[in-house]
Amino acid sequence: MSTVASGTSADSLMTSTDAADSSDTLANVYLKTRSFTDRITRTLSAEDCMVQSMDDASPTRWHLAHTTWFFETFVLKDQPDYRVFDEAFGYLFNSYYNTIGDQYPRHRRGLISRPGLETIREYRSHVDRAIRDAFDSNSLTNAQLALVQTGIQHEQQHQELILTDIKHALSCSPLWPKYDDLPFEPARTATENWIDVPSGLVTIGQQGEGFSFDNESPVHEVHLMGTRLAGDLVTCGEYREFIDDGGYERPELWLSMGWNAVQTNGWRSPLYWLQQNGAWLTFTLAGLVPLNDDWPVCHISLFEADAYARWRGMRLPTEFEWEAAAKSERNRSATRNEQPFADQLVDRGFAIHPTRSPDTLMGSVWQWTSSSYAAYPGYRPPPGAVGEYNGKFMCNQYVLRGGSVATSSDHIRTTYRNFFPADTRWQFTGIRLAK
Amino acid sequence: MSTVASGTSADSLMTSTDAADSSDTLANVYLKTRSFTDRITRTLSAEDCMVQSMDDASPTRWHLAHTTWFFETFVLKDQPDYRVFDEAFGYLFNSYYNTIGDQYPRHRRGLISRPGLETIREYRSHVDRAIRDAFDSNSLTNAQLALVQTGIQHEQQHQELILTDIKHALSCSPLWPKYDDLPFEPARTATENWIDVPSGLVTIGQQGEGFSFDNESPVHEVHLMGTRLAGDLVTCGEYREFIDDGGYERPELWLSMGWNAVQTNGWRSPLYWLQQNGAWLTFTLAGLVPLNDDWPVCHISLFEADAYARWRGMRLPTEFEWEAAAKSERNRSATRNEQPFADQLVDRGFAIHPTRSPDTLMGSVWQWTSSSYAAYPGYRPPPGAVGEYNGKFMCNQYVLRGGSVATSSDHIRTTYRNFFPADTRWQFTGIRLAK
Amino acid sequence: MSTVASGTSADSLMTSTDAADSSDTLANVYLKTRSFTDRITRTLSAEDCMVQSMDDASPTRWHLAHTTWFFETFVLKDQPDYRVFDEAFGYLFNSYYNTIGDQYPRHRRGLISRPGLETIREYRSHVDRAIRDAFDSNSLTNAQLALVQTGIQHEQQHQELILTDIKHALSCSPLWPKYDDLPFEPARTATENWIDVPSGLVTIGQQGEGFSFDNESPVHEVHLMGTRLAGDLVTCGEYREFIDDGGYERPELWLSMGWNAVQTNGWRSPLYWLQQNGAWLTFTLAGLVPLNDDWPVCHISLFEADAYARWRGMRLPTEFEWEAAAKSERNRSATRNEQPFADQLVDRGFAIHPTRSPDTLMGSVWQWTSSSYAAYPGYRPPPGAVGEYNGKFMCNQYVLRGGSVATSSDHIRTTYRNFFPADTRWQFTGIRLAK
Amino acid sequence: MSTVASGTSADSLMTSTDAADSSDTLANVYLKTRSFTDRITRTLSAEDCMVQSMDDASPTRWHLAHTTWFFETFVLKDQPDYRVFDEAFGYLFNSYYNTIGDQYPRHRRGLISRPGLETIREYRSHVDRAIRDAFDSNSLTNAQLALVQTGIQHEQQHQELILTDIKHALSCSPLWPKYDDLPFEPARTATENWIDVPSGLVTIGQQGEGFSFDNESPVHEVHLMGTRLAGDLVTCGEYREFIDDGGYERPELWLSMGWNAVQTNGWRSPLYWLQQNGAWLTFTLAGLVPLNDDWPVCHISLFEADAYARWRGMRLPTEFEWEAAAKSERNRSATRNEQPFADQLVDRGFAIHPTRSPDTLMGSVWQWTSSSYAAYPGYRPPPGAVGEYNGKFMCNQYVLRGGSVATSSDHIRTTYRNFFPADTRWQFTGIRLAK
Repeated sequence: MSTVASGTSADSLMTSTDAADSSDTLANVYLKTRSFTDRITRTLSAEDCMVQSMDDASPTRWHLAHTTWFFETFVLKDQPDYRVFDEAFGYLFNSYYNTIGDQYPRHRRGLISRPGLETIREYRSHVDRAIRDAFDSNSLTNAQLALVQTGIQHEQQHQELILTDIKHALSCSPLWPKYDDLPFEPARTATENWIDVPSGLVTIGQQGEGFSFDNESPVHEVHLMGTRLAGDLVTCGEYREFIDDGGYERPELWLSMGWNAVQTNGWRSPLYWLQQNGAWLTFTLAGLVPLNDDWPVCHISLFEADAYARWRGMRLPTEFEWEAAAKSERNRSATRNEQPFADQLVDRGFAIHPTRSPDTLMGSVWQWTSSSYAAYPGYRPPPGAVGEYNGKFMCNQYVLRGGSVATSSDHIRTTYRNFFPADTRWQFTGIRLAK
Repeated sequence: MSTVASGTSADSLMTSTDAADSSDTLANVYLKTRSFTDRITRTLSAEDCMVQSMDDASPTRWHLAHTTWFFETFVLKDQPDYRVFDEAFGYLFNSYYNTIGDQYPRHRRGLISRPGLETIREYRSHVDRAIRDAFDSNSLTNAQLALVQTGIQHEQQHQELILTDIKHALSCSPLWPKYDDLPFEPARTATENWIDVPSGLVTIGQQGEGFSFDNESPVHEVHLMGTRLAGDLVTCGEYREFIDDGGYERPELWLSMGWNAVQTNGWRSPLYWLQQNGAWLTFTLAGLVPLNDDWPVCHISLFEADAYARWRGMRLPTEFEWEAAAKSERNRSATRNEQPFADQLVDRGFAIHPTRSPDTLMGSVWQWTSSSYAAYPGYRPPPGAVGEYNGKFMCNQYVLRGGSVATSSDHIRTTYRNFFPADTRWQFTGIRLAK
Repeated sequence: MSTVASGTSADSLMTSTDAADSSDTLANVYLKTRSFTDRITRTLSAEDCMVQSMDDASPTRWHLAHTTWFFETFVLKDQPDYRVFDEAFGYLFNSYYNTIGDQYPRHRRGLISRPGLETIREYRSHVDRAIRDAFDSNSLTNAQLALVQTGIQHEQQHQELILTDIKHALSCSPLWPKYDDLPFEPARTATENWIDVPSGLVTIGQQGEGFSFDNESPVHEVHLMGTRLAGDLVTCGEYREFIDDGGYERPELWLSMGWNAVQTNGWRSPLYWLQQNGAWLTFTLAGLVPLNDDWPVCHISLFEADAYARWRGMRLPTEFEWEAAAKSERNRSATRNEQPFADQLVDRGFAIHPTRSPDTLMGSVWQWTSSSYAAYPGYRPPPGAVGEYNGKFMCNQYVLRGGSVATSSDHIRTTYRNFFPADTRWQFTGIRLAK
Repeated sequence: MSTVASGTSADSLMTSTDAADSSDTLANVYLKTRSFTDRITRTLSAEDCMVQSMDDASPTRWHLAHTTWFFETFVLKDQPDYRVFDEAFGYLFNSYYNTIGDQYPRHRRGLISRPGLETIREYRSHVDRAIRDAFDSNSLTNAQLALVQTGIQHEQQHQELILTDIKHALSCSPLWPKYDDLPFEPARTATENWIDVPSGLVTIGQQGEGFSFDNESPVHEVHLMGTRLAGDLVTCGEYREFIDDGGYERPELWLSMGWNAVQTNGWRSPLYWLQQNGAWLTFTLAGLVPLNDDWPVCHISLFEADAYARWRGMRLPTEFEWEAAAKSERNRSATRNEQPFADQLVDRGFAIHPTRSPDTLMGSVWQWTSSSYAAYPGYRPPPGAVGEYNGKFMCNQYVLRGGSVATSSDHIRTTYRNFFPADTRWQFTGIRLAK
């Protein structure tokens, strides 16, 4: 996961986030973001927050502490009066910033029981107070304000990971426990439309005022040949046809590594699907529920997305085709009329399949592209520890575009580049076809 | 770990345990044992009780629930009025009783966050009330009374595992947290004596009234050639000489598999030892402390015990030599004058190295023997699910004799047979030499 | 590795290969190619031809048989009078054509000792006679002639693999045996020039008459921003500076997966380098020799190429930049004046570092690009078993351009796309920088 | 595998082997033994001799060289005029004698193609000439003569390994090639007899003149309780009943580690059994043949032997029960009337199941006992490199008694102790029951 705020000034930052009204101050956005993290973890017990169910996932408690450590390390440590909450946390809750110091091995995060959850919550409050004080006293430099903004975006990324990780953690229990039991009612407006992707030179990357990560720049031109993207995401019902047609038993449909993954892992359906007495069920954050054929298919790897597309005689879009189409769509539908994420949480609960935004490409699931992740031409990583994010992870990962039901609204934009290895399934990932 | 109560009557059981006065009723022994489990876990947080730091260890919470499940399954389920606390627990907290049903995979016990610790404690109370009611109403058959006695012994075994497992769990944190901070003062009475092991036929196994597991019988005769056993355990200071003499770098001192283990695992000292600025420290249940040369060496594998003995030009005793020597010593020292385990806890804390009983072979650490574990000649496993313990685990494990500071007094007897794989280090294990 | 001949007619094929004079008939090219395979394996014993030193490599004997099986299966089986040499070979020497039938597991190829090497050579002769007869009797259809051409290219690819695989096999012996002891004298014409890569739209892919694989098409336009490529390959001497500057110990220089590979594999230098008494040696097909600082560095992974470039403050080119620069260079140097590969073998031996073609980008080593391998836009795989190559392998592999001392001249062209996983080191792979 | 000749004088050695007439000289025994190794490898190609099909097995060529290296290193190197054949062989063909120097990693023996097989045969001739010259010139000391005798026994052990390893190697080919196609006719004299094992003190270990390894001593007394051993080995037909009764699906029949092995490895029958169209076939050194119900079951692990015994309501004997019964039987049947092994080879071929000696316990397959391998009481390893054998391997291995169709007659004696890990199946191993 990426990355780093581009070097916009604090002023523009203050108006660039839509986690709040555009009139919101950065201080308010900070507090709302932090508060929302608390809100999406309040149903979890101390025990739930301990579970690390696989190396790629982290315990909830680690997310709660790590996001806090980010603000303490990059913003507060230089404040003259700041008292570090606990020096040991630097080692425990650093993630991969080699520049900052050693780090506790990632795959062993689930073995650390102390500090306890209550202490971690105190740590959060301690840092929140200090940040608020710093805002109140106007003691933050422009560079620090930019880092606050980056930290907010960073925390929003971890909000999504909290949800994907706890879903995986809970799925390890034979009791299929619920994360929460808010009702949800997935809405979906089916269209048969295909969206034209322009041909010729198109402009890729983030332009203008809004916040963006540095992997969304430099802006540059890409030459496209013209194609069409599906107006709808592939649904569970459509994906079941692939399964029923022997999709998981036919090597000719799969990338070589994908076929290997199918056999090694015994994949026979998307993650979290199971069959009982002939009926398909799926595990959601609201527990085990009957599969709804109208929902967008979710929790599939790039391998499965690619095999499905081949089976349909189509293909996945490139990330550039996706972005060009999205920008073109955005121009057509001037208003986005999406609800902020926090409201969605209250209104609809975290089920995996509500269609988030039927009238755009954004959708309720991340959409695999055929593009291997790489820096844009001309990209130069910024210096220093925060910049350490950037040159990393650029290998053997594939770009996803759009956003999911668990993604902060702030991260849903036409230029945002998410990326994961091709066998990733625990994220909210689905398919938009190209032809 | 073993095993099953021999088929003694409930009457003899009632007087056979020294967890309490011999005048104690079985009901009282049950309640004291259960209460002691609560006592040794009261300093642990819900988070601590979640950690499974390796496949061989289990989370504290699992031990708390599993020992309770034993009584519910083997004693209470047949009681007419008993209400099962939660049917799902049968799957979650079964260990390896295939006869009883499927089981949740052992190495994933640390991923189960629900039920929470509080619910598990309610489960314990629920079962304790039901057992007490059953005693009060005299509704337990003799077979059920024998199973209560077996369950008590089973819980005492898990008390030791709770301590060894939480020690390992806490050692995974770079903060070296304490299990408890009771003071302790290891006592040790050094002797230069060697104890004669008789030659000729000796009688092996448990005779008489007291409780024993079925792997301590049948009583049979073994022919010994006569040898001598060290009156003292090998100390940390003596073991350091082995390290300083290159013990961990000389393949000729090691069993072939042992040398392989040294290289694969990078062993350079006993588990929990570490060197800082030239001084040796060791991690104990009271935290990180300077190593004391007078303490018995602890947390070593059979491989290390064997290599040390070879380096000294001696060897490890067989389990039969050990038992013969222990019985002979016992006759010499008529009084054992040990404190009950529970008092030790209060008086001395759980440090790893207090010498428990300087005047017998029992000692503060389990003592590796050269004997591969096997059933005694003529042994027949009892039928049924409880009997399922017995034929199991008899392969590639080596017998330990004596008992450790974490062992219930009830389990410390001359005929008790503990056993573990040769590379086991997280138990409280040490060395008594033979020559 | 790829792939499939595009659907050119047999006529054009007959004049499109430069393994021979352009006036050569396809029959002659076939025989010369087959004969050259025999020639590069004639110094190898039956034992040498058995070794499979890692999963990615194959025994020489397998290459000899598999390339033959290709002609038998795709060209001869449909000939009316053809007698299959041995039906069992279809199973043993199929590589990954699922359409054709099951296959013997790749990583176990080194366990098959029968048929013996002599029988495999008879198999080659048997098929060669049948192909010659077919040419003589004009009984091959145009489609079959195209498949002969594909088989020739396929065999040439395996000629390179024979050399890379036997080099790795021989390197497993502590005796550092020679593949051959022909002398070699690496020539290198150093230049300080940088080659301009044009900006704007450039045409990518193979146009015109010559043979190409289908992954070199469709021809399409790509938009470039303009850059410069080094006129020389990075040398061993330059790479040693990277090593001496702690290149293998500085995580900030590496891709995240690359740093992981460094630590897991203990990489401290390119493959086949070793240090003795302070001097660097390298293992070549002519045995162990002192490292020559002027040779192009070879046997490095993409990870190392990328880290080296970052250390130099530069980067690797994309495959499109490489191709645009190569085409532009080619136009400047009208004559290629390279010797055919077979002559090189005689003249210069197979050392790893002779500079093959100092006056072009082609060079003596494959050159890593930063481009993840993917099909070109608009690509559609051809139907059937031969077409099965194409959709495969397109994941987590990076494109190499140019060609190596072990590459057939036929494969050295500006549009050729080689590709391997990022940690590959046993191929003849090096670095050309971009800035 | 063991081990070292006890320190008998060369004179007694000269009359103690029955690989030849008792009147044979040691020189003759040496030459006959060496010649027999050549004979059992003469049907194997250079390619066959390369295969290492698993880590526990070695290529035939390695056995040929290693046994020769033993004589060169331990006998010839000290001879004044001896010219070492090739200094590099010391590294390549050492097995595990750390005292002698480093060793090439065992699991990579199959990667070494040079020296070629012909050179290895020259190496054998070179050493044989030198040994013969040494005998002719009476230049060997008594200690060296004893080492010649040890080397002969060592080579005979490797003869058995040559056969077990090449059988496994050939079984990896889907063509099921034959090692040889000599006809064989397994004979079996069924008896319903049970053999009484005496109770009380019995003497264990080798006494008297004959050669023995040092793990057969010291002679000592063991106390037995009295039991009975089956007069016959368990047959394939009997074992099929176990399979048909669900033996491989019932965890209650298995040791815990055994059940784990069944599931991990997917065992459903002995090694080399396969079912085609409902009929059982088995792979032998003479190729794939229909299974004969009368043959002794072979190629089973200790786990399978133990599970079968439990299923029958019986058990495996201890090694002491076996030895006591065998000695008692030997006294009853004064004459052994077995053919020397070499003649068996000619007469009957190497099929896996000929009953070798129906009138003793020896039989055609090694017989698992329930005894974990350990040194006998009072054992002290001899000093030096040859003695290095002894302290090794004593962990997690189980004793087999008797001998197999592939065992040299010299090794078939009542006191011989073979030992392997409990999951070993590629040796010729079977079952004799006790009750």
